[in-house]
Amino acid sequence: MKCTAAIDLRDVEEMYINIDPIQAGGRLTADAMKAVIAYGDGYSVCDNCRKPFRLDYIQKPPIADFHQDLAKFVGMDEARVVPGARRGFQAVAGTYVQKGDPVMLTGLSHYTEFIAVENAGGVPLEIPKNDQNIITAEAAAARIEEAEQTFGRSPVLLFIDQVDYQYGNLHEVKEIARVAHSHDIPVLVNGAYTVGIMPVDGKVLGADFVVGSGHKSMAAPAPSGVLATTSERAEEVFRTTQIKGDLTGRTFGIKEVEMMGCTLMGVTLMGMMASFPHVQERVQHWDEHLENSRLVVDALRSIEGTEIRSEMPRRHTLTRVDTSGSFDKVAETHKKRGFFLSSALKKKGIMGVIPGATKVWKFNTYGISRAQAEYVAEAYTEIAEENGLSIVSP
Amino acid sequence: MKCTAAIDLRDVEEMYINIDPIQAGGRLTADAMKAVIAYGDGYSVCDNCRKPFRLDYIQKPPIADFHQDLAKFVGMDEARVVPGARRGFQAVAGTYVQKGDPVMLTGLSHYTEFIAVENAGGVPLEIPKNDQNIITAEAAAARIEEAEQTFGRSPVLLFIDQVDYQYGNLHEVKEIARVAHSHDIPVLVNGAYTVGIMPVDGKVLGADFVVGSGHKSMAAPAPSGVLATTSERAEEVFRTTQIKGDLTGRTFGIKEVEMMGCTLMGVTLMGMMASFPHVQERVQHWDEHLENSRLVVDALRSIEGTEIRSEMPRRHTLTRVDTSGSFDKVAETHKKRGFFLSSALKKKGIMGVIPGATKVWKFNTYGISRAQAEYVAEAYTEIAEENGLSIVSP
Repeated sequence: MKCTAAIDLRDVEEMYINIDPIQAGGRLTADAMKAVIAYGDGYSVCDNCRKPFRLDYIQKPPIADFHQDLAKFVGMDEARVVPGARRGFQAVAGTYVQKGDPVMLTGLSHYTEFIAVENAGGVPLEIPKNDQNIITAEAAAARIEEAEQTFGRSPVLLFIDQVDYQYGNLHEVKEIARVAHSHDIPVLVNGAYTVGIMPVDGKVLGADFVVGSGHKSMAAPAPSGVLATTSERAEEVFRTTQIKGDLTGRTFGIKEVEMMGCTLMGVTLMGMMASFPHVQERVQHWDEHLENSRLVVDALRSIEGTEIRSEMPRRHTLTRVDTSGSFDKVAETHKKRGFFLSSALKKKGIMGVIPGATKVWKFNTYGISRAQAEYVAEAYTEIAEENGLSIVSP
Repeated sequence: MKCTAAIDLRDVEEMYINIDPIQAGGRLTADAMKAVIAYGDGYSVCDNCRKPFRLDYIQKPPIADFHQDLAKFVGMDEARVVPGARRGFQAVAGTYVQKGDPVMLTGLSHYTEFIAVENAGGVPLEIPKNDQNIITAEAAAARIEEAEQTFGRSPVLLFIDQVDYQYGNLHEVKEIARVAHSHDIPVLVNGAYTVGIMPVDGKVLGADFVVGSGHKSMAAPAPSGVLATTSERAEEVFRTTQIKGDLTGRTFGIKEVEMMGCTLMGVTLMGMMASFPHVQERVQHWDEHLENSRLVVDALRSIEGTEIRSEMPRRHTLTRVDTSGSFDKVAETHKKRGFFLSSALKKKGIMGVIPGATKVWKFNTYGISRAQAEYVAEAYTEIAEENGLSIVSP
């Protein structure tokens, strides 16, 4: 019985301001919490599954409608829910990448994109970031041309993170898509840090695929996500099963190969659906979240020796900061060593920064209120002053 | 805002006795429900993720311990959680099946096994069921030898459902595994209807892989499941990433390729963990569940013209019944047509049989109490009598 005994009920979101880099956009809404309670049981959405027996055809709860709304939400024609953005990458790589095929990634691609390519047997080619940690169309064009020289053919797929996980920077997605299309390369836009957080229009970006994460940015339980595409590409990535039992002659209806049939049959999907109206609304308020984030960034910049490694001004709430010249100096002589910072923050009710990190670290203020942002900003400068660091105008 | 407005809170498990064929084993325990509420937020299990940054290494909550317990629970050496049994099939097929490879399935294999084979490009070869709808070792041996003749080499993988989804029959798994191993074919035992419901010992069965379903049989939210294996096969199916950024030189630690890194980062895993001690306990009471099931089966058999299509005596709570000669006769003239049966059951507080089905249908009494089983048994004979069918001794 030890497992149950050992599970502490989690209260991070209730008791603290959480600025964890990956958790900010995945906090449930109250409606999602209600849905989670009502749909916790295993196959809870299957009560009214009728022919043709596929998740995205279920009318009650309104899963079919949700799929259409979801596609529209990211400016694409069709959408499916998947168990995490990574499973969207896997589906697309599984469709387009054969062993030995060159695939474009970037110097800031998330590891799950690399693993999707590895799983399909592709050869990864990174588009380098520039001095400002931005992936540019110019760099993409150069790298694609180099790939064509080396392989004697075009790469079969290009992954671009709309906002990357390291710096929270926005990249030249639209321009890169244009370059890729001029080489007939389909483009997957990784919106794990954007879909559900800020407005995303895949058609405007020129995406063939938009992938989003439910548990990272759509206020949904894990694992959940979305893979959206164009009508044209839907026929490829959402192709239905063709396999047949060689003795029985059995076939398997309209189940989709890359989806492995149905995907999210219960709590994850219902949480995502219940949050969706709120998510549609909140992306319209992105500027406010950005403003709150800038308050904290400015406070950090005001601490002597601290540098923001992300692009400035900030265009996303995920930020990379280098405190080697400030908090890390304190850590050298502090009796708690590097843990003094997370410890001091925790005392002030702030969580989400890796304990012990005082050199380069990330935080994400998405979803906190103006008052909370002011509080966090003040907390950082207070901790700095308490430890003998100077506050300067940034 | 239409999605939220349209989500009715589900009360099937609270208001009815649910004998749905796929939902019976996935009802949450009370502890799972508590865990679901506490861990609903997106990446809720990642608060204390530290190096080496992989889900199954997390100590708090005790995910690492749970993985070890889970492997032991099914008599294997190593286990990982996956987003549904199907994703376990996909991982194994992805590891062993290359394009054009022969793969053994059976005439009763679940569609997700076929899709896993299709996704990997394998050629499916079915082992036929016998007259009693059982997959035998004899049939397996014959079909494997035939495959070797045709392909000039052994099949690369064999799937066998310990209990199949159509009849709920138990098959000759142990004997089939012995045959397969004599041809050097690794064996995947699909325990979607067994792991979490009845005792399963993969080592005794001779399994190389045991796959279970959290939302089908482990009282866990969807999508969840387990892929367990031997130490030897773990190195293959749980191989870690080798891919490298060609410009940055980035590598990606000990993330596992077929798992796509981490799998269940929140509510699904925590629900599975919270139910686990109860699941460990309940498999010891399999006989009681079987007895309850036999009560209902006997009642159905007592209705003139009704035949049980599953093996008899029943060795599983999932049963296929043919009422073409009884309830379907009633449907011919009943004003509600085929819907009379589900409607009459619903009035008596019983759900889970597809509305309109009066010919061949399935039900699963797993998890209901003795009193509930008696009630369901009586409900069937009452409905029969009310509609002019005779009750005979089976």
